[in-house]
Amino acid sequence: MPDQPALPFTFEVLYGEGITLSQFDNHIIRRLSNMKSHFLDNAAYEAALAQEDTVLYEVYEIHRPEIPGELLHGLSIVHPGKVGNEYYMTKGHFHTVLETAEVYYCLRGQGCMVMESPEGDWAVEPLRPQTVLYVPPRWAHRSVNTDSKEDLVTFFIYPGNAGHDYGSIEKQGFRKLVVEVDASPQIQDNPRWLPPEVR
Amino acid sequence: MPDQPALPFTFEVLYGEGITLSQFDNHIIRRLSNMKSHFLDNAAYEAALAQEDTVLYEVYEIHRPEIPGELLHGLSIVHPGKVGNEYYMTKGHFHTVLETAEVYYCLRGQGCMVMESPEGDWAVEPLRPQTVLYVPPRWAHRSVNTDSKEDLVTFFIYPGNAGHDYGSIEKQGFRKLVVEVDASPQIQDNPRWLPPEVR
Repeated sequence: MPDQPALPFTFEVLYGEGITLSQFDNHIIRRLSNMKSHFLDNAAYEAALAQEDTVLYEVYEIHRPEIPGELLHGLSIVHPGKVGNEYYMTKGHFHTVLETAEVYYCLRGQGCMVMESPEGDWAVEPLRPQTVLYVPPRWAHRSVNTDSKEDLVTFFIYPGNAGHDYGSIEKQGFRKLVVEVDASPQIQDNPRWLPPEVR
Repeated sequence: MPDQPALPFTFEVLYGEGITLSQFDNHIIRRLSNMKSHFLDNAAYEAALAQEDTVLYEVYEIHRPEIPGELLHGLSIVHPGKVGNEYYMTKGHFHTVLETAEVYYCLRGQGCMVMESPEGDWAVEPLRPQTVLYVPPRWAHRSVNTDSKEDLVTFFIYPGNAGHDYGSIEKQGFRKLVVEVDASPQIQDNPRWLPPEVR
């Protein structure tokens, strides 16, 4: 006889001034101090941090066994703001098991997902309410909030065995940055980025 | 060198009188005539079919490779109605790879998910707008629309290698039925259902 299977469950996405979940197992809070070296303008970063260790983004996670066949899921909230002219964003990561995808459903806000493959291909896709984004296997991904006032809120789902690999992103960042130019978001080259063959 | 990876993509969930997707690869339409033997009251089924071969539910699918690490996803729409006193519902199925989960995000309507394990455990969870349902590995699942007027619309995500196994459900149905009694949904035993040990 197999063990009693895990029971099905439901929870609610609660819409209010903010969006949250009626039930979750883990609440991650990422502040400016957790994001050292992620923004290009380090002087602006240090100046902002000296003022206040602001919360940049939050993640609510539902725990499931970290094995193939299970689906990890939860809510991501990137607050509005900038460091220098670079918009608030998540750290971004590859999956440790590279050949695993992720689905994002955008619930609120305006922003984009910055992505790149280990070979140095890049892509930026828009995120608006009711946008579904498919991040295929192999693509690192980072959410960026390009709105000046509203949170960027997404619901995400990825395979239980995917894991998170922050290593190469923390070292040099993504190939592309999303910055504000003349009050509009613009995609720019990241001068710190090196192509895979010269790293 | 690996092949060029698949490109990320986005599409929109379009809200109107109905809900649909801005982009999809496959549109499945299930009519009364596709649902023979799924409803308990066969006389009511034949009488309804003699009137009109009504559309009971529709599924919009996004194609991805059917392998582990990919995520299949799309939109499910169960229309309102009954056959006898049993609400319109999907056929329901196990995953062929039994140890795979599924996430449902309810976008519109009122209904429930009827589930059961191969061991005969059962569960019924409510579906309302903004409800997230986790169907753990091993649970067969069927959506039921218990509203009299509105579609039940859910967005679903499951592992690329899951597959669909309709076999045992088509033979005898789920252990529990959802029927209307005094204008309200009620969970009842399915008299055709047999426990695993006596099948």
